[in-house]
Amino acid sequence: MTVLKNDLFLRACKRLPVERTPIWIMRQAGRYLPEYRAVRKKADFLTLCKTPELVAEVTLQPVDLIGVDAAIIFSDILVVPEAMGMHLEIYEGRGPVFPNPIRNEADAKALKEIDPGIELKYVLDAVALTKKELNQRVPLIGFSGSPWTLLTYMVEGQGAKTFSIVKNLIYNNPALAHALLDKIANTVANYLNAKIEAGVDAVQLFDTWGGILSPHDFVTFSLSYIEKIISRIKRKDIPIILFAKGVHFSFQQLAESGADVVGLDWSMEIGDVRKMIGDKVALQGNMDPTVLYAGQEQIRQEAIRILRSFGHGTGHVFNLGHGILPDVPPENLKALVRCVKEESVQFHSSGSEFES
Amino acid sequence: MTVLKNDLFLRACKRLPVERTPIWIMRQAGRYLPEYRAVRKKADFLTLCKTPELVAEVTLQPVDLIGVDAAIIFSDILVVPEAMGMHLEIYEGRGPVFPNPIRNEADAKALKEIDPGIELKYVLDAVALTKKELNQRVPLIGFSGSPWTLLTYMVEGQGAKTFSIVKNLIYNNPALAHALLDKIANTVANYLNAKIEAGVDAVQLFDTWGGILSPHDFVTFSLSYIEKIISRIKRKDIPIILFAKGVHFSFQQLAESGADVVGLDWSMEIGDVRKMIGDKVALQGNMDPTVLYAGQEQIRQEAIRILRSFGHGTGHVFNLGHGILPDVPPENLKALVRCVKEESVQFHSSGSEFES
Repeated sequence: MTVLKNDLFLRACKRLPVERTPIWIMRQAGRYLPEYRAVRKKADFLTLCKTPELVAEVTLQPVDLIGVDAAIIFSDILVVPEAMGMHLEIYEGRGPVFPNPIRNEADAKALKEIDPGIELKYVLDAVALTKKELNQRVPLIGFSGSPWTLLTYMVEGQGAKTFSIVKNLIYNNPALAHALLDKIANTVANYLNAKIEAGVDAVQLFDTWGGILSPHDFVTFSLSYIEKIISRIKRKDIPIILFAKGVHFSFQQLAESGADVVGLDWSMEIGDVRKMIGDKVALQGNMDPTVLYAGQEQIRQEAIRILRSFGHGTGHVFNLGHGILPDVPPENLKALVRCVKEESVQFHSSGSEFES
Repeated sequence: MTVLKNDLFLRACKRLPVERTPIWIMRQAGRYLPEYRAVRKKADFLTLCKTPELVAEVTLQPVDLIGVDAAIIFSDILVVPEAMGMHLEIYEGRGPVFPNPIRNEADAKALKEIDPGIELKYVLDAVALTKKELNQRVPLIGFSGSPWTLLTYMVEGQGAKTFSIVKNLIYNNPALAHALLDKIANTVANYLNAKIEAGVDAVQLFDTWGGILSPHDFVTFSLSYIEKIISRIKRKDIPIILFAKGVHFSFQQLAESGADVVGLDWSMEIGDVRKMIGDKVALQGNMDPTVLYAGQEQIRQEAIRILRSFGHGTGHVFNLGHGILPDVPPENLKALVRCVKEESVQFHSSGSEFES
């Protein structure tokens, strides 16, 4: 096994000493990059996801062009339900749609038990190819949606505002909801293990819709299935990042979920969360993605504010609090990455009076 | 001045002893009620807002039909920017649209300084008429959007997902943002004072979009203007409720804003928040609105769970954590109201071993 040239990200995930704070950006391979849009002219979204050569190309773009400290394999959380047999359509500007969402026991029964090595082989091939092309420059992250977030899409069928359909399901047919969540959790665990086998250096679970649940429903319908997945991941020293948006009141529980890193949205001070749970897990985040609309000096000020809020010592992976927005100028992201690389050194200098 | 027959809501707002926990529901006069939809067949949304007789009719509906402990004058937060000169269009199923949103200094300059007694006289007339028709049965609440929430609509022009336009404004032209927020804050303060003059017994500020801001931007662009309004309200013993959605990390600051009551969304345990700030303010909330999709026994369980989480003693106004959804069966809301009235008595019984 060759050694990574830049393993700052992995060390920060494990709260091992680092020379500076690593940075990567959710959705860093995406529409804000002209080079990504050029690839998309050649292939629609799902074709791109299913073509390992193109996946490798767009996955490497932010490493080459922006200088991030980790790559994340280009894909979509909805390839999992698609592999389970749900027809998926992606419309530009409207987002993904399942024209035949899950609404009853028969729909649920029709969902296939899959072998990720077969139905999602294209992702594993993309991981292997990308890993090769990365040539150990930076670690490669694999990801999946959480069972709850996947269920939400599978039941609603499209973007929702009030989530009335999935909420109806959990309140009026909890047995069906739990059966589906269990099936999805098994699939996700197998899928992440297959990605680890294929070569990813870390995995991230996205629970985008955890925050639409009340704290106790979050534990019942989301966190318990996340914990099940984490307990089934064949670790081999692979850090697990858990990013659950809007679940601020469950931080203690997230920290005890078995995840190594907890991702934060921008609705909190990272320093406050470090005081709460920073002795148990590393933290990832948490700049408001819209700050990248600002001028570069203001971006710099905000980056420094967040670095200072986290404070001295390891355990911080710099990121945005949600995915980068498609209309951000790439120059602004470059400025952010440059700034974090430069300004974070002072928070890791050994012998500093503030060393923690 | 005649005396209210049921002043439980006002007493709970002031943390005075009550015999049971009062309940009202955000958007309680609205589309879930067939009786409301019947009125809407006679008048479009804005005509309804501007016709005091119809406003009084729909405002009283939940008092008569559901049995809530407070009425809230039927209106919309966007009547304020409309009165300031912005053309407002309401499309069924799409929500409100300002076809000419504010994008620059000239747009801002064109906003009128209004006298609520003239441009919003129809609201004040509706308050006076509703107050008369209520005949002191329950208190009447008046409301306004916060300056930040109004600015968001005025700048975006319509419902937004990433709020990129208003975020661009605050980061790239903060001087214009602050000038607009100040103008709106003055208008809202005058508007709420006029409503108080017209007879409302309490006022609520809705900061629906406070939660899209990071904690420090929330203070800069939203809370500081809310505090300005609160300091300018001519109190006369009128409780002020502050409902800011998604701003969980600012509770200490909300409690020190001058508001008497802090409204909670459903992303937290009300008992936890009571421990944090319950010695400073009363709390309003916080059932997940989608629980009203469940069966009545489950609604009952959840209501009891929330009452128990708050615990013994006064200072709790039961409500949902956001507005009631249009597809909720009215019978389910009736069941909730009945349950809170019955089950909350035990949390206020004097001489109880749990009395606080």
